[in-house]
Amino acid sequence: MSDDGAQDLRVLVFDVNETLSDLTPLRVRFEDVGAPADLMPTWFAGVLRDGFALTAAGAYADFASVALDGLRSLLPGVKGWAGDVEAAARHVLDGFAELEVHPDVPDGVRKLSDAGFQLVTMTNGSNTLTEGLLAKAGLVDLFEELLDVRGPRCWKPARAAYRYAVDQVEVRPEQALLVAVHPWDVDGALRAGLRGAWLRRGATVYPQSMSPPTYSAQDLRELADALIADRT
Amino acid sequence: MSDDGAQDLRVLVFDVNETLSDLTPLRVRFEDVGAPADLMPTWFAGVLRDGFALTAAGAYADFASVALDGLRSLLPGVKGWAGDVEAAARHVLDGFAELEVHPDVPDGVRKLSDAGFQLVTMTNGSNTLTEGLLAKAGLVDLFEELLDVRGPRCWKPARAAYRYAVDQVEVRPEQALLVAVHPWDVDGALRAGLRGAWLRRGATVYPQSMSPPTYSAQDLRELADALIADRT
Repeated sequence: MSDDGAQDLRVLVFDVNETLSDLTPLRVRFEDVGAPADLMPTWFAGVLRDGFALTAAGAYADFASVALDGLRSLLPGVKGWAGDVEAAARHVLDGFAELEVHPDVPDGVRKLSDAGFQLVTMTNGSNTLTEGLLAKAGLVDLFEELLDVRGPRCWKPARAAYRYAVDQVEVRPEQALLVAVHPWDVDGALRAGLRGAWLRRGATVYPQSMSPPTYSAQDLRELADALIADRT
Repeated sequence: MSDDGAQDLRVLVFDVNETLSDLTPLRVRFEDVGAPADLMPTWFAGVLRDGFALTAAGAYADFASVALDGLRSLLPGVKGWAGDVEAAARHVLDGFAELEVHPDVPDGVRKLSDAGFQLVTMTNGSNTLTEGLLAKAGLVDLFEELLDVRGPRCWKPARAAYRYAVDQVEVRPEQALLVAVHPWDVDGALRAGLRGAWLRRGATVYPQSMSPPTYSAQDLRELADALIADRT
């Protein structure tokens, strides 16, 4: 599951949305405003699509702006929907502040911190939301830095976003491992010179069009065990 | 609806998927393989997300590969689904060859061709599929070039994809107008120095985080009328 040189690994860079946090409660927020719960994954894929589009075109907008645009576009298209778009969109987005970490995250983070890895987050979202999420789980003090793409002003998986993260903690790219549930994030990190760990969280298939991960684990507990085993 | 200088406009660069073609029949293909029709928009947004991710990371894969990866990832996650993933994915993808143009496209294309505009297509998909689509509608001879991103090896909305298209027909970017139903495509074209026309096709809201279109029209007939009026 690992390549050589794992003993040089110093920093773990965590993606946040879906990797640390469980977005499932946002489905209920869609239902709250009269939209189908299944619109949530369509919307979230579209938010990433549009943020990546801006990045690919050399531009930038905050996650919240792109997410709001996405809701403004999708909600009026829901059959029979006739609500207040701005209020409904706000209700969905406010749900980000109520999210919790996946059940395996506290154990995994503590194990990795105890083993001496430096932990940071790097999100396409906002570090304020990351801080709230990790504080609620009692984990925030175990992280050295909470970073987001407002620093480099480009979204992951652009190379500059990963390079920004490793620069902030003053390590070389190859001393860092990106941990994410999204293959596009793992692929981007690998192309930027970091290593990449894919948390499967129930998924079975990694895309053939993307660079294969350095590590693959079901969840953060399993990844922590693998990283600690490779280190010792 | 227009800026100045429309009389210099020579080339119309058409996006294909959803702009010329109607993807609705793909919903039935999802049902054919035992998946909900509503998985179609989630899958399609995810295909663009992953293609743009590769582009943002400086990499490239063909549309068909990314689309196949997306189906391999999504189908096993459908509750109670237990089919043959490869056969089901092929069945969905084969649907692209069966698509037809939107009802307004033949009139719009003929008007624009008669008015002397040079027409080309530039798709993140394949020019073979574009050719089949336009041939079936009796329109293929009205297009000067059918282009796809296998040329520049980066997906729209990367600047290089638009520049490749205008280079192929030997015009300056500002002499070309990108026509698309997707705001991210219009935004990318504008950032690459082209003009951009947004076909609304029932949508009401253009994203605030993207560059506003040079033209906005309900469909291709309406856009043709506006472009011809501005030219004369």
